[in-house]
Formats: sequence, C-alpha cells, structure tokens
Amino acid sequence: MTTDTTIPVLINGAAEDRISSLDRGLLYGDGLFETIAVADGRPVFWSRHMARLQAGSERLGIPCVDADRLAEEARGLLQGVERCILKIIVTRGTGGRGYRAPTDPQPTRIIQRHPWADYPASCTEQGVRVRLCEQRLGTDPLLAGVKHLNRLEQILARQEWTDPEIMEGLMADWQGNLVEGTMSNLFVVQGPVLATPDLGRCGVAGIVRGVVIELAEELGLSLAVRDLTLTALRAADEVFLTNSVIGIWPVIRLDDHSWRRGQVARQLQEGLAGLHRGDEQWQH
Amino acid sequence: MTTDTTIPVLINGAAEDRISSLDRGLLYGDGLFETIAVADGRPVFWSRHMARLQAGSERLGIPCVDADRLAEEARGLLQGVERCILKIIVTRGTGGRGYRAPTDPQPTRIIQRHPWADYPASCTEQGVRVRLCEQRLGTDPLLAGVKHLNRLEQILARQEWTDPEIMEGLMADWQGNLVEGTMSNLFVVQGPVLATPDLGRCGVAGIVRGVVIELAEELGLSLAVRDLTLTALRAADEVFLTNSVIGIWPVIRLDDHSWRRGQVARQLQEGLAGLHRGDEQWQH
Repeated sequence: MTTDTTIPVLINGAAEDRISSLDRGLLYGDGLFETIAVADGRPVFWSRHMARLQAGSERLGIPCVDADRLAEEARGLLQGVERCILKIIVTRGTGGRGYRAPTDPQPTRIIQRHPWADYPASCTEQGVRVRLCEQRLGTDPLLAGVKHLNRLEQILARQEWTDPEIMEGLMADWQGNLVEGTMSNLFVVQGPVLATPDLGRCGVAGIVRGVVIELAEELGLSLAVRDLTLTALRAADEVFLTNSVIGIWPVIRLDDHSWRRGQVARQLQEGLAGLHRGDEQWQH
Repeated sequence: MTTDTTIPVLINGAAEDRISSLDRGLLYGDGLFETIAVADGRPVFWSRHMARLQAGSERLGIPCVDADRLAEEARGLLQGVERCILKIIVTRGTGGRGYRAPTDPQPTRIIQRHPWADYPASCTEQGVRVRLCEQRLGTDPLLAGVKHLNRLEQILARQEWTDPEIMEGLMADWQGNLVEGTMSNLFVVQGPVLATPDLGRCGVAGIVRGVVIELAEELGLSLAVRDLTLTALRAADEVFLTNSVIGIWPVIRLDDHSWRRGQVARQLQEGLAGLHRGDEQWQH
C-alpha cells in the first residue's frame, strides 16, 4: 500500500476514488477486505479470496457481493498490468441508525490497484527477523478468522517498532498463546509435525495459510492446528510466516533466538510457486 | 444517524461529503469519533468531547486536531440550527504501508450534522427494557475507554434483536462482567452506592458517564467503579444507562427481572438538565 494518489480505484463499478463519509465502512469498520497478489496479470488464488469474502459477509450479515461482477471489474482494472496488488473492500454501505444496520443494506464494493510490494528477495531466500509485540489480540469467536476492517490491534502492534531490519511482529492472545504476525500467519515445524495456531478465538485465516495446510498433507507432513506457546516456538526446528503478498518467509531470528531456514519452508515455497503457475481459477 | 443524503458534511473544512477510499479510517478503522448533542444551537459538553478526542488521539498516536478549528467549522455547520447531533470523525488520513502508519500523518477531520434522534419521551420518563447480548467485548487495555472506529462488536451485538420494545443490549466481557450497553454506559444504585463498571479492559468512557460520576459526588452518593456481575445487577435498587444523546434512561426490565425508576436516576436527570442549561463552554 502506498500514498500514491494515482492508484486506480473502482467504486461500485465506477472509476471513482472517493466514498461517502456516511459509509459504515468508515463509521464503524463495518466491512471486509481482501489483499490479492496479481502475477502475470492474474489475481492469484482468486476463488479462495472470493470464498473467504463470502464467508466473512455471512458472518457479518452483509449481503454477498457477486464474485463474477467483482471479477469483471477487476479485469478492467488489471488491463495491461502484469504485477500488482489488488485490494478489494466490501462494506455494509450507508444507512441504519447508529450501530443498528439497515434492514436492506446495499454493500459498497471498492477495488484498488496498488503497486507490487517491494520486499527484498532476501526475506524469501534467507529469512527474516521478527519481534514479539506487547499488543495482544482480543478474544472474539464470532469475528475470529474474518478479514474485517477493524484493525486497530494490528496498527498499534505495528507502531511498536521502527527498526527496518525487523520485518514482522508476532502477536499473542491474552492467554499468552502466539496467534499470528501483524500481517501474516505463523507456522512452526517440529520434527514431522507442521503446526499453526488455532484461529477459533482471534486472528485472520489467511489464504496462503489454507494453501500451506493443504500442501503439508501432500508433502507427507502431519499437521497440527493448536495453541502455540513461546516455549514451543523457541523449540521449533523451523518457523515461517505466510501471506498473499509475501508468500512464505522463513523466520530466522526473534530477539536472541535463531532458527535455520529449513527444508520444509523451502519445499513449501516451491509448492506454492507451482500452484501460482498452475492457478487457472481466474480463467473461468 | 440516518440515510438522509442531505446531511451536511465538512471534510477538512470544505463542504464535501466524500473521503478518499485510501483513508485509513476506512481501510482499518484507524481513527476516532465523537457524537455530540446540540441543544439551543450549542454542542453540549463541547470541551469534554474535545478532551476525549485529544486523549484518544494520543492513545492511537494520531496528531491532535486543533479544537478551535473544529469549533469554528462546527459553528458554520450549526448556523440557524437549534437541535441536532454533531458527529466528528478524525482519522489518521491516507498513507503508510499496510498497517504501518505514515511517519507524518495528516489527519482527516469530518464533521457531520445529523437530525436529532427521535427517541420516545417515555424512555427518559418511564424507563426502558433491555436485553443481555451474547456478543462479548474483547479485552484491550490500550484501546479500552477510547471511542475509536473499530465497532464491529457493537454492530454484531445490535444485530441480535429486532424487537422495537427493547431499547438497548447490555454487553459483558469474557469474564462475564457487565461492561456497558451497545451505545451507552451502565450504572447501578445499591443503597447509598452508585456503581459503574471499570473500563480498564474494554468499553467506551462516555462523556455523560463522566458527568454522572461528578454529579454523584455532589448528590452525596458514594461512587464505586468496579466489576459488575449479572447477580449484582439484579440485586440493584436502580439501573440506568447514559450517553450524550439519550442523557439518562432508567432501565426497568431485563428478561423477567424488573426495577423501578428510582430517585437517583431522577435526581441525576435533573442535575444533567441543569448542566445542559448552564453549559457555557461553547461561548469561548
């Protein structure tokens, strides 16, 4: 994301970059978003992003936006562009009275085309340093997993550091379990087990997290979705982070603790790249 | 709040009702708001609202918006209007990279003039029925008390009922302590003690809540800010709700439990009305 004011935007299908100040997305964060990598002119894992957007809409009680319509609009915005980030926001629109939602909400759909993120290749190839954030994630089973617009916890966490060498901050819940990074999901490898935190109480169910879980089974790893303590993190053979833009980043350091960039992260990176190449979901 | 599209809006001082779709207020709920009652053409408790806005800005790390400038803009919007609701929103503006805030944020300030809320007079005079929401409030000491734009918990709670006889829903935290209503603060009277939940872990520190706490001392009531269980609520002599628009609403029923509209709520309503009349903060 950037401050570039020339970011092309479609709002409800129109070439328009402003929304009503009465939109509930602004008033209350009453909406959802998807951040989608575009490679070779195609939004990667499009169908998965659309499925998550639909599931989130159902959770919040926002009418589902038609995915074909979004695809058509995205296609217009992507013309002639090979590599970028597509951000899709769906809000409950205007109306209602205070927190009470309108009885017949007309969702606002926003599609923004952002420049590709310029993270150093070393993040993928050598791995990254992370820190542990003091900011915690609050419990909410109803909102857990959903990529909604209420992101102050992540913003406060991201404000905790300025060191450019530290690429991500890990966040725990109030029980002290590690849940995710500010913008990524967390995995650890311990022997033959690939483990990732349970997102039943908080956290965002990332698209690449879901893909890695499927890839793990193909690679013959046994998968565990469970609570993850800092002690278990330190004891892990490998640690890595995932999201739609970064793919998979091995974690090589947290404070004075180091991990090697291991074979599992490498295999999963290759598996993910293969899926990117083979992802024909966009050609529907 | 209403869907009326003729709601006058000023954005950064200009007669403009739309904001950038890149504003962090929309992207992440990265901002604050104030809902201010206007009576006799004057925003009630203006200085208190400005003080809370400033405190919230400091908490989120958003540069403080100049209150005199806001007052000047509000004055323009209020010309010739005796009774309405002023809504002020301050966001961190555009920029930054993802959750990471820009190093030199330029806040967006939005002032909206909404019609006065048409709640029945019986809410104030006879009292209201409430329900207990299943939706809980997550813990976050850093965000607790702040009137920020992340309000999905309240929206999900407000979606739990449609019965127009029920005017408010009470919300508990994950420990089972009652914290507040979806849009109001909660007080109970037990003998000579006026008690209201502690907002150190979650909740919004309402302006009228602060005023009532001060009035209580003047009325010779002893004040307790403490955890409040459902059992203690049921055992209370009186229960009431506060916010800037409703003032003070006695609670007379929750499920099969009833309370009388008591003397303390009545005295506090009178005290509040006296302060409204005497509030000269706007004439600065």
